[in-house]
This record gives sequence, C-alpha cells and structure tokens, in this order.
Amino acid sequence: MFSPLIDELMQALRCLPGVGPKSAQRMAMQLLEHDRGGATRLADCLSRAVEGVARCQRCRTLTEQPLCGVCSNERRDNTLLCVVETPADVLAIEQAGSYQGKYFVLLGHLSPIDGVGPEDIGIDQLMTLLDAEPVSEIILATNPTVEGEATAYYISERARRAGITVSRIAHGVPLGGELEYIDGGTLAHAFSSRRTL
Amino acid sequence: MFSPLIDELMQALRCLPGVGPKSAQRMAMQLLEHDRGGATRLADCLSRAVEGVARCQRCRTLTEQPLCGVCSNERRDNTLLCVVETPADVLAIEQAGSYQGKYFVLLGHLSPIDGVGPEDIGIDQLMTLLDAEPVSEIILATNPTVEGEATAYYISERARRAGITVSRIAHGVPLGGELEYIDGGTLAHAFSSRRTL
Repeated sequence: MFSPLIDELMQALRCLPGVGPKSAQRMAMQLLEHDRGGATRLADCLSRAVEGVARCQRCRTLTEQPLCGVCSNERRDNTLLCVVETPADVLAIEQAGSYQGKYFVLLGHLSPIDGVGPEDIGIDQLMTLLDAEPVSEIILATNPTVEGEATAYYISERARRAGITVSRIAHGVPLGGELEYIDGGTLAHAFSSRRTL
Repeated sequence: MFSPLIDELMQALRCLPGVGPKSAQRMAMQLLEHDRGGATRLADCLSRAVEGVARCQRCRTLTEQPLCGVCSNERRDNTLLCVVETPADVLAIEQAGSYQGKYFVLLGHLSPIDGVGPEDIGIDQLMTLLDAEPVSEIILATNPTVEGEATAYYISERARRAGITVSRIAHGVPLGGELEYIDGGTLAHAFSSRRTL
C-alpha cells in the first residue's frame, strides 16, 4: 500500500510484543513523520544490544559484561540466592528494592511435556554454584504456575539434599488488592497459607 | 538497574507511541531473549527507512520514490483530488479501497494559535497542482475537529475561486455503530446533515 520500505518497517515493528498491524502503522508513521532522531537512536541501540548483550556467567541474567551488576557487587549478600525464571523477574525484584542477596536465573521452568528437563534450566550450573559459594538459603521465586511450582519443588529437593535451607516466596492477596477482585485460586491459597498471629 | 546497554535500549524504545517504561522493558526482554533476529531486522529497517523515506514531490505523502505509488499510477482518476491531513489518512482511505482518485497531504491543519498558516500546510503547492492538473473536484477529508473544519473551509474558498467543485466527506453515525454509544456531537451532526429519502 505504502512504499516497500515503509511496509517492511511496519512488518518489522510487529516483532515487538503487543504490536499488531494498526499499532505498527501508527509507530512507523510517528517515527518517520515526527521522530527520525528517535528512530535512528532506536536502530543503533537495537544493533548494539543484539551484538553486545549476552548472559552473566554466574547467574545467567542478561548483561553485556562477563558478570552482571548484581553478581559483581561485593556488597550483596552471597549467602542468599534467589532463583527466578527470567531476567525480567530479576528486574522486578530489584525494582522492589528490598532484596539484598544474589540471583540465579533458570531461563525457563521444568516442563516435561515440552521436553524441558533439569539440564535445560541450568540445574547443573546451579548445583555447581551452590558448591562453590557460601549459600545458606535458597529463596524460590518461580512463578505460581503448575510448571513453576514443579520447578520449585524439584530445586528444593536437590538443595535440601545438599544441606541448604530452602524457602518459597509467599503467595496470597497482593497489598492494595481488594478481596472482591481477587481470583479464587489466590484466595484459596491465601486461606490455606494463613499465619497465626 | 540492568546493564547500560539494556537500559539504553529500553529508553530508546520509549520513542514509540504508546510505549511506557513497563512496555519498553517487556519489549527489550522479549527481543533480547527470544527474537534477536527480529531485533536485527527491525534495526536494519529503521535505518533504511529513516535514510530512504522522503515526501512524494506531488502529494507530499511518505515514500522512498520521487513520486508515491498513487501519484505515479496512470490508472488513478486525476480529475478527483482528496485532501487529507496526514499520510496515515491516505493509508486509511486506501485500505477502505473505494476511492480511485489522487491525494494531497497537508501535513497538518491551519492553527493560528500555533502559528500554522496556509504556507505551512502547502496551500501554495496545492494551488499550483490545481493549475497544472485537470482536477474537477476536490474532496475535503480533513478531520472533523475545529482546526480540520477551518482548514476545509479555507481550502474550499480558495478552490471555489479557481472554479473547482468542492465537496466534504460525510460525517455522522458510523456503520455498525449503535446510537446508544455515539457521542452527542456526532449525533447532533447526523441530525443536522440528514438527507431526504
């Protein structure tokens, strides 16, 4: 409809999550009409990030250094290790700002039906790390899905055998959440995990 | 929080319309974790589009050729000229597929308060075009806003003096729209512009 270059750009923009044909069109128009500087900068950042960003050798999160900012930070508590599924989870926890330990990123979860076993989510690397470092507690922060729970259970068994304390982050009603709008599964979990005051 | 390169990429993604900090983060993670091919392709398309896409010499829409696809198409009716505000409007009308004439893109609308006068929206170029081509009817498809209406009125006066028929696209209740959900302004317009059957 438009010139081939613009059509191609709209198509390329659709690789972004949540961007359909209409949004891609709006984005392409906005960039070409009002923000060519931004478009050039974005192109440049994308190329450099694709080339430069790899995995942290220790925790497997995304970074352009051999070790990520958390792993190379001497002041972080390396007796605490939080296990998460994705680098985005690390970011979410870091943004909350209350956790001072280190991380290990599984880059997925156990899912036998998709052929994802322990070796695919770096369990060997995790066990090596537990041997090499003075970790005293593993905090499991995998997602509260069937796969996430199974992964947490698997890691807890392995870590317990290695003599390490294992904990799971609490699941329940979020702060600021109103009971009326909370789903049944969460409410049931909040009741079964209730704490004596 | 993340490495500088990833932070920079998230920042750059925010030049896209409708993309806030959370979406930018999600997009950066998605691209770096699951679609580096897409990211490279997007960077490439952006660079090439910024470099290659300019304005059609005749109608001022976006194109990488001297003349856009519509202007260079011999089979389009060049006695009809549709005047729109933006290249996105051209695309919307082309996608509807019923219009067979040509276009002129104002790239804006009259807005004295912002210092946008007739010379800024290419009225001179439009009048030159009307002189040079066998245009018999101008269809005004500017937006039904105050500025769009003022622009339409201004162009209609100029074109009428040049002896050209001027029409305005119809505004009213959209097809498939339910009266219940239509805003008052549109409804009032639909009543005042009613046609005798």
